[in-house]
Parts: sequence; C-alpha cells; structure tokens
Amino acid sequence: MALQITKPTLLLNEKRALANIDRMVEKATRSGVRFRPHFKTHQSAEIGQWFRDKGVTAITVSSVDMALYFARHEWADITIAIPVNLRQLDAIDYLASRIKLGVVVESVEAVDSLRQQIGSDLQVWLKIDVGYHRTGLLWDDPSSIMQVARSVKSAKKLRVKGLLTHAGHTYGETSAEKIRAIYRQSLERMTIVQYELSQQGYDVQISVGDTPGCSLIENFGEVDEIRPGNFIFYDLSQVWFGSCREEDVALALACPVISKHAARNQIVIYGGAIHLSKESLPANSLTNHQVPIYGGICLMEDGCWSGMFQNSAIINLSQEHGVIDAEEQLFKSVNVGDLVAILPVHSCLTANLMGQYQTLGGKQIDMISRNKFSKESISEFA
Amino acid sequence: MALQITKPTLLLNEKRALANIDRMVEKATRSGVRFRPHFKTHQSAEIGQWFRDKGVTAITVSSVDMALYFARHEWADITIAIPVNLRQLDAIDYLASRIKLGVVVESVEAVDSLRQQIGSDLQVWLKIDVGYHRTGLLWDDPSSIMQVARSVKSAKKLRVKGLLTHAGHTYGETSAEKIRAIYRQSLERMTIVQYELSQQGYDVQISVGDTPGCSLIENFGEVDEIRPGNFIFYDLSQVWFGSCREEDVALALACPVISKHAARNQIVIYGGAIHLSKESLPANSLTNHQVPIYGGICLMEDGCWSGMFQNSAIINLSQEHGVIDAEEQLFKSVNVGDLVAILPVHSCLTANLMGQYQTLGGKQIDMISRNKFSKESISEFA
Repeated sequence: MALQITKPTLLLNEKRALANIDRMVEKATRSGVRFRPHFKTHQSAEIGQWFRDKGVTAITVSSVDMALYFARHEWADITIAIPVNLRQLDAIDYLASRIKLGVVVESVEAVDSLRQQIGSDLQVWLKIDVGYHRTGLLWDDPSSIMQVARSVKSAKKLRVKGLLTHAGHTYGETSAEKIRAIYRQSLERMTIVQYELSQQGYDVQISVGDTPGCSLIENFGEVDEIRPGNFIFYDLSQVWFGSCREEDVALALACPVISKHAARNQIVIYGGAIHLSKESLPANSLTNHQVPIYGGICLMEDGCWSGMFQNSAIINLSQEHGVIDAEEQLFKSVNVGDLVAILPVHSCLTANLMGQYQTLGGKQIDMISRNKFSKESISEFA
Repeated sequence: MALQITKPTLLLNEKRALANIDRMVEKATRSGVRFRPHFKTHQSAEIGQWFRDKGVTAITVSSVDMALYFARHEWADITIAIPVNLRQLDAIDYLASRIKLGVVVESVEAVDSLRQQIGSDLQVWLKIDVGYHRTGLLWDDPSSIMQVARSVKSAKKLRVKGLLTHAGHTYGETSAEKIRAIYRQSLERMTIVQYELSQQGYDVQISVGDTPGCSLIENFGEVDEIRPGNFIFYDLSQVWFGSCREEDVALALACPVISKHAARNQIVIYGGAIHLSKESLPANSLTNHQVPIYGGICLMEDGCWSGMFQNSAIINLSQEHGVIDAEEQLFKSVNVGDLVAILPVHSCLTANLMGQYQTLGGKQIDMISRNKFSKESISEFA
C-alpha cells in the first residue's frame, strides 16, 4: 500500500464521492430544481470545487463562520440554514453587502433585529416545521407564518425569498417507503403554506432537503431547491436507513490495531471518540449486537478498504480507544500493528473531528479551521 | 458582561480548575505518591504550566502526538498510557532519545517490535486489566504477565518500570462506596501481581488513576503514582458519579439562543454535536428526563455561569443545534439572542472539539492542533 498511515487517518474515496455528487446533480437537473448542497458535511473549499466543476453555484451552510469561509473561497450565493444567530449580525451584514446571502427566521423578534441592523439586501427564508419539531413555524399555524412574513415584507432590505424546511424525521426511519412518504407529506405541507402565502400576495419558493429523502426520491416534485449534504460521503447511518449502499460510503477512518483479546474476541484500535465521534446506531440495527455500535469494520486491501464485516462492530469507544467485537474471520486476519478501516456512523461529525482528508491516492485535502475565536473572523475575510 | 460572545465558546473558570488541581496535588502529597496527571483532558501547554507551578514534573498522555507536543513544551517525563502503537515507533524512538519516556505494553509481540526498533532507554509499563476489560493482561493470569515481563527484561534498552491499570469500570457507578470499593479491589489485585513479580526478582511500581476513584479516595494506599485527568475540569458525568460537586465543574459552553417553542417548552441553541460531542448521560440520571441528556443548563450571570437548572437539559443534539427541554423558570428567563451556558457531559471531548478556552476574565488559552497529518510531526518537534 502506498499510503504511510501511522495513526487514525480519514480516508476519502474520491471516486465514490464524485459519483455521489454526480447522481444528485443529475437527479436535480432531471427534476428541474436548484441544487443547493449543504457544505456542513465536508466543510472544505477544495471539495467545494468538485461541486463547482459540476455547475453548482448556490450552497447551504450551517453557521456564519462557514459562510465567511466559503465566501472567501468565492461562493457568492449562500444560505445559512439555521435560525439566525442575533449575536452575529455584524458578520451577516458584512456578508450581505458582498454576496447573495440567505438567512432563516422563525420569529418576528428575529426579523426586528435584522431590520434594525442589516444595511444590504438580504434574502429571508421562513423556517417551516413540517413534523420534525426541532425548529420552525408550524406548517398548520398560518397566522403565525403570515405574521412573520408581513414583518419581513415591511423591512426595506429584507425580502421573503421562500419557505425552508428540514424533514429531519426521516433520520431513524429504515423503510424506503416510509422515507418517501415523509418526503411527500413534507412537500404537501409546504405547498399548502405556499398557497396560503400566495393568497396574500407572496410569491415564495420552497426549499427542502434531507439526505434520506433526497436519496430515495427520484423526482423532487414541486420544489424550487434541494439542500442535502451528507450524501457526498454517506455513512453507516445512511446505509441503515437505506439511503445508500455500503459501496457508496466514501469515508473510512484507518486505525492501527493496538491490542487483541482472544478470550473475548475483541480487537482494540487506536481510534476513539475524538476521531469518530460518539454517534451510534442502536442495538440490533445493522449488526446483531445487543448494544449500540460506533462503526463498521473493514480491512485495508490494495490501498482501499474492503467490504464491511457483517457480524463485527465497534461496541465501545473512549477518548482514543475503540473496542471491536470481532467475528472469527476478522479476528484471525488482523494483528497488532495492522490497520483496520472503520465506516463512521455519522460522516459529518467524523470529518469535523478529523479536520483533514487523505484521498486513496495519498493527497491531503484541508477543511475549515475548527471552532477558534478569531480564525473565521470578518477581518480575515476582508 | 465583559465577554463578547457571539457563538459557542468554551468558558473556563480558572479559579475552579486551579482549586481542582490543588486538591489533587495535596492529596497525592499527603499519600506520598507521585502525581502524574493525564493531560489528554486539557491538551494545553499553557494549562500544563499550572501543574508545573504546583511542582508537577511527570505527566501522562494518550497519544504519541500529545507526547511530542508536551515534550516540545519542556515536559521531560511522559508516559503514553495506551497500548503502544507499533506504527509510530520512529517517533517513540525519537522521544526516548530526548526525554524520560514510558510506554505501555500487553503482549510479547509488541515488546519484540520495541526491542528491534528502539535505540534509547525506554520505560515499559505492563498494562494490567483489573476488571475494566478494555485492554491489558488479566491480573489473575500471572503466567502471561511473567512472559511479557521476561520479554521486556531480555531487551537491552527496555526496562520493566511497573504495572499500570485504568479502573475505568468506576465510570457509570454512582455510589461513592462502590467506587471506593473498585479502587480498593484494583489496588489489591495490582498488589498481588506486584508480589508475584517480586518473587521472580522484578521490582515494579504501581500506577493507577481514574478520576472517580482518585476523587473519592482520601488515601491512595500502596501505589507509586496516580494518573487522573478529567478532575481538572470535571463535568456532568462526574457530578452524576458523585466524584465532584456541581460547583467544581470548571468548563461550560456559552451558546446563543436561536429559537424558542412555548408549546413544547423548548429552547434551541446554536451549539451542537460539533461543540459538545454526543456524549450523553442515561435517561433518569441527573434529571428526570426519560431520554438521554447531552448537557446541563445554566444562565450567564455577571460574567460567570449560574447554578444548573435541575429540571432542564439538552435532550436532542444535531450538528450545530441543541434542543433544551426547559422548565418554566428557565423558559421565561431566556430570549432569542441571549446566552445560556451548558455544562458538558464529558469535558475531555468538549475541550477536544472546541480547541480553545476562554477564561472568565476573557483570556484565550490554546491547545494542541487537531488530528492533522503533519502538525505534531517529529520534524516540528526537532
């Protein structure tokens, strides 16, 4: 193997990631919808370029810092898809003066703050709750929705661009039919809100987009844009939901084996919660384990990772150790000092922790700096 | 408040951290044991200096990278307390040539690799499993222990320094009596192994040290050194175990409120899994919630955080959002745009994610760079 891996290293199968992008680009084109991929998954300017090469010009991010980072890398149409953080209005105002910026609101109070402090044109998306119940105005509460819409309309620099939802309740569903049903129901509810607003003279777009829904739906229907993110890498959760095949997963964490315990069929790796995150799949989900699992197990073969062992998984994860419950064939194949490759449960969190990718060809790809105070400040952007 | 907090920010109560250090230093001194604190919790050279100011000269780390980082910051007696990673023997050899380095082994195979590739004196600790069953040679398997000891002894540059254990099975116990019993049992088992080795002519030290045990034991007994780490900050888990009081917790994550939902008594913060980690406490642990919780809730008052609300907690955590189930008084006290402070479930993982501390006085404290390929390389150390 060409790669010199000495410690936990996040491997990126570029070919798979590009195929995942292609598939979603084609589907969006076929459905005639704008593709505004969520860049919180990869957080990388270089990977962003792969999307640009496919004609993508509009993106989604989940923080003002990420918007500043991608704006600095010449993205000029960005939606920050989290209810607006009123403590970062300076940076939002700065961004709005330079790029086409979209923000998400769900209260009159937030709109009031925007009205007072934003001096440039700003696109405002009303966050609609179609059933996930994390954030958003309830889809069946038209009077509250109308109140916020009116408040936006009355502000000189603000424009009601559309309705935005995240049907996060597809996560955890493992039937394609159920996931498609949630997608269709979300769309129906969004269309009702759109209609009600149109009756009051508002012309608003619809933006949707969770990875399970967008992966399992062939035609996106009457929406204006989709915003999936995770699909570029996928992960063990998405395999479990049925959003992708195991062969579509484009990230794996290569980890050195540091210990083996034959009496309990366990392999211990150098690779823990600070590399993979503590995201887990429930007991009896993808494997037969009676406890939550923290990753799937593959071997390294010819510079790539193998298929996953179906009866093995990480069953315990501390700061830097992972404990693998190993089936016989796996246990026998691996010695202390060897590498195994772990399919992450949640690739967004694993990528965020690792801060860097290594392609199977050995190339390093960087991403945004982590949560430091000054790194993504306005002054650096300017 | 003097602090200008615009986004999730890891606050460090310096006074509490210093008091936590003092307490452990004093207890170690009183017990006549070496204090070799685990620096994986804070991962910061500047915070390391606080220990040095109290006379600490020996430390524990959990990776070769951390050893390189602290060696660069003039720590000259370091134990890497994880079974030795055979893929980093170059760096280990380099470190061993410059500082007093300790590594942990649990197999003859690992010792063979060390024998072949290490050219300087290296202290070898035999990892003993006293009941946690993560790694280590079983305490009641003297023949395997003796085999590894002999193998170390036969290698010119290696020296059997001692027996090292981590009684991680104190984690999750919530009775002080039970935790003390585990400590005493571990010690008894380690002493038996020490005796058996002494019969074969080995003079070995005993190293122990999980935070619950070290916090609840007043006299450490017949051990040579203790290695707790988490105690410098503590966290919600340790409050639950009973290792500390809530008033001892020295870290909190300040987060902007971005959404409120009166119908379900929920407050949504900008602050998620990439800030806090997905470590959770089980349902019905510290609060009355029927679901796992991801953090305790405080208000910001006079530049510090308040006492924790006893009937509120983070009940859902996605990449950048946290959902708080809020009792009435909390719900009423907080508006969109305000800050709340979250007591982390596991301070080590939260600190690792945030990468930087801000003291209540507004000072920034840095830590080691995250898991990048080249950052902590040998060449940088040299």
